[in-house]
Amino acid sequence: MNFDITVEIRGVDGVADPEGRTIERALGSLGFGGASQVHVGKTITFALVADDATVAKATATQMCERLLANPVIERYEITVTLRP
Amino acid sequence: MNFDITVEIRGVDGVADPEGRTIERALGSLGFGGASQVHVGKTITFALVADDATVAKATATQMCERLLANPVIERYEITVTLRP
Repeated sequence: MNFDITVEIRGVDGVADPEGRTIERALGSLGFGGASQVHVGKTITFALVADDATVAKATATQMCERLLANPVIERYEITVTLRP
Repeated sequence: MNFDITVEIRGVDGVADPEGRTIERALGSLGFGGASQVHVGKTITFALVADDATVAKATATQMCERLLANPVIERYEITVTLRP
């Protein structure tokens, strides 16, 4: 079965987000005063062949632990969708 | 009113995604053979003060055009949620 996997990765609370802070300052400089709490994360999407959704999710979790995310400073959220 | 804004940014179709290709190869090297079409995008979230949802969306669109995205090679999707 073919699945579409979406992995949302962002920093755990308390970890510095320098890119977010820079964007926040830049938005202010451009006159967009109302924005705050800017955070930047990463979204990785891919197609995955797996026996069923449970296996797909387990595989994606392993991928995150071993390569895609750094569990010490990042948390990730995996969405599995059956490809039509 | 306070809104939560999520901006999903990814490359337009046809633009090279070297980070995605690198991840795809690395997943293969780690034994995860079933993954393909890997794409990497960016998610920017922030809080925004605006009069209503329409103004919030328009402001976020301007932010994307002027700073957050590069409309030549990236497309973006804005989600506006009223903060409870």
